[in-house]
Amino acid sequence: MSKKPKAVILISGGLDSATTLAIAQEQGYECYALSIDYGQRHRIELKAARQIAKSFGVTEHKTIHVGLDELGGSALTDKTIAVPESPKEGIPATYVPARNTIFLSLALGWAEVIGARALFIGVTAVDYSGYPDCRETFIHAFEKAANLGTKAGAEGGAFQIHTPLVTLSKAAIIQQGIRLGVDYGLTVSCYQSDEEGRACGVCDSCRFRMQGFQEAGVADPTHYRK
Amino acid sequence: MSKKPKAVILISGGLDSATTLAIAQEQGYECYALSIDYGQRHRIELKAARQIAKSFGVTEHKTIHVGLDELGGSALTDKTIAVPESPKEGIPATYVPARNTIFLSLALGWAEVIGARALFIGVTAVDYSGYPDCRETFIHAFEKAANLGTKAGAEGGAFQIHTPLVTLSKAAIIQQGIRLGVDYGLTVSCYQSDEEGRACGVCDSCRFRMQGFQEAGVADPTHYRK
Repeated sequence: MSKKPKAVILISGGLDSATTLAIAQEQGYECYALSIDYGQRHRIELKAARQIAKSFGVTEHKTIHVGLDELGGSALTDKTIAVPESPKEGIPATYVPARNTIFLSLALGWAEVIGARALFIGVTAVDYSGYPDCRETFIHAFEKAANLGTKAGAEGGAFQIHTPLVTLSKAAIIQQGIRLGVDYGLTVSCYQSDEEGRACGVCDSCRFRMQGFQEAGVADPTHYRK
Repeated sequence: MSKKPKAVILISGGLDSATTLAIAQEQGYECYALSIDYGQRHRIELKAARQIAKSFGVTEHKTIHVGLDELGGSALTDKTIAVPESPKEGIPATYVPARNTIFLSLALGWAEVIGARALFIGVTAVDYSGYPDCRETFIHAFEKAANLGTKAGAEGGAFQIHTPLVTLSKAAIIQQGIRLGVDYGLTVSCYQSDEEGRACGVCDSCRFRMQGFQEAGVADPTHYRK
């Protein structure tokens, strides 16, 4: 049996969460990767998540289905809402209501079942879209709720939510990932990539990613449509 | 268009949440009922939830699927773990890791989409199984996280989580429900009811329910197997 402490790492198939998984592994955790099939239009990221999990040799990778597309209210789950293709003021239409609250809740549930006390989530509040559930204040508040609302938490086995990227720029994230051997060619960031996994190059997520590779001085392995 | 404030009410199909729905309606809310299909072995409660929602004439009732049975770790989602049939010390095997955290997250997501700021959950910390996620301290902590982790919360439209039953005994809940016209014959509490909806009479949930009707001096409409 492994003597390493266990961690549940949320992986989307994107660049940030792949780097987060690499960091959790480097920190000595036995890694359990969790992906959420929430009806996202960019389905290809779930396939990317499986490949990323495999490339790191995680102990287990689960994909849990949650019908957020039935709730709607986001460009990422409702095809009638357009994905913005240029920067705008405020929180964009790609915001998915309560997404990280839901994802962390599921990670918490699995962590409690397998006896993990560490949860990793690749939120970043530097080169990001202003989503409120990527900020540290939210993560801290959720961590507190997690420790009050679980058996393990109530019995004193405190859960900790790790956000190793939260203060890093996209370029710094990429540099860290390269150092740790992340294959960014496996990752998908685009909100509207096509069936071959080619990125649009114009959504928020593509823009942050492109700029990150540029600033990091690292060749961008992304396949763009145009 | 309705001028009433909107509320999302979590309904399981059980006695407590049906009463909570009645209370939300009495308080003047336009009611949106949410049920969660989390792979619970007592599937019949989802059917009960639909009938309850219908009997109250809610504006909308949604059932969202979440694969908690894939995570396991509870007698309610894993048939290899027995449902306890007598009172025991501590939190019983029917505890579902992070259940109310997950349920409240989904209710929060829907609330944000429809513009509701009130969430109702029928937790009670009097005649209950000691589940940590039924306690007020947890609910308050979650409410704080909810307001930090959503667009509406971050923009100042504070979410409030209502727990009208939390300090009530099961008998007091039933008396309140009777006053409000709840048809308890529609509700299912048993953790292991059979396909005809007949209750076992021996699980924690049955015991609290039976005792509640007895103490309330109200005829128990439950169909028991034995």
